Amino acid sequence: MQNESGMLILFSGPSGVGKDTLLDIILGKNELFQRSVSLTTREKRSGETDGVDYYFISKEKFIKMVDDGQVLEYAQYGDNIYGTPKAPVDKWLSEGKTVILKIEVKGAQKIRELYPDAVSIFLLPPSMQILEKRIRARGTENEQDIAKRLEIAKNEILRSADYDFVVINDKIDEAASNVLNIINSMNFTYKKMSNKISEVVKNV
Amino acid sequence: MQNESGMLILFSGPSGVGKDTLLDIILGKNELFQRSVSLTTREKRSGETDGVDYYFISKEKFIKMVDDGQVLEYAQYGDNIYGTPKAPVDKWLSEGKTVILKIEVKGAQKIRELYPDAVSIFLLPPSMQILEKRIRARGTENEQDIAKRLEIAKNEILRSADYDFVVINDKIDEAASNVLNIINSMNFTYKKMSNKISEVVKNV
Repeated sequence: MQNESGMLILFSGPSGVGKDTLLDIILGKNELFQRSVSLTTREKRSGETDGVDYYFISKEKFIKMVDDGQVLEYAQYGDNIYGTPKAPVDKWLSEGKTVILKIEVKGAQKIRELYPDAVSIFLLPPSMQILEKRIRARGTENEQDIAKRLEIAKNEILRSADYDFVVINDKIDEAASNVLNIINSMNFTYKKMSNKISEVVKNV
Repeated sequence: MQNESGMLILFSGPSGVGKDTLLDIILGKNELFQRSVSLTTREKRSGETDGVDYYFISKEKFIKMVDDGQVLEYAQYGDNIYGTPKAPVDKWLSEGKTVILKIEVKGAQKIRELYPDAVSIFLLPPSMQILEKRIRARGTENEQDIAKRLEIAKNEILRSADYDFVVINDKIDEAASNVLNIINSMNFTYKKMSNKISEVVKNV
């Protein structure tokens, strides 16, 4: 009952740094963890599942959801729009879940204004050279896209100062363990524990 | 090399809650952990060692150290004075150590003003009834001292709002693991990681 009001985790990092692999590792570790699924208008990549990796929707549908106030934040990257549907996040938080939101740096900034108690974690590559290698290894992008992604990555890393925590993804298991510890630790902030404290003191 | 400037942990909790037992468990877990030893004018209890549990010194010597600016904070509890010697804390922090300071609530408040980056953790008993049992089990105090300690405990718990984190000591191993995770997690704050981030970005 510790998380009566839930906890929102903003998880960012440049494209290719390994956010999805890390989330796959930690999501099974705590039954309260709930991964938020984003909306996107980009094409589904091979191996991706609608409703699991993203909600793949049309531009028209996206714009309608924004107009209906159903999108918490959204941003355009290249030709595609990405966004966070509002209803599921609020529902999970009210159920005491730890909602983990994989989100771009600009989106995180908007969410922070709406949810000031959100805990934000930035996943950093050990070096830009290693990040470039990882993006190339994925083999899904052409040279122009790679250059664009590296430029975006550079700008994102320079804005990591907005984040509460920064974890380096050198060895994935170590990075996952560090992220897991950070999330678990944030259940012990004074604010999260204040109900427990009241319980102990009321019997004095 | 992550902790180039070290980290100061303020660890508080009412007398009898199990601070020493918990510290004994975690201190061997990380070679950078360094427990600060306090000064006290109180009588040495059976099983305690000078220079390990406390520096047991006379009131005259204590007053001279305060006059010489060698005491970071001090406070009187009952007939005894407790304090923190300044020199070793500053030396360990400059060496990149994680200095763990077991300290009373009032002392923690003073240290926070001097070391605003200090991370503070309050150890809470599951209930006041259990705390009283633990104090009685120690068998070192008379009824009057026990009543005094419980009164102090109540006031300390009511001031735990000044702390960054609050951990309940129900099962000692679980509490120790939580405290350990909190301390380790605080190595990943943006501020602690800023050198690493600069390293990654300088090659862009």
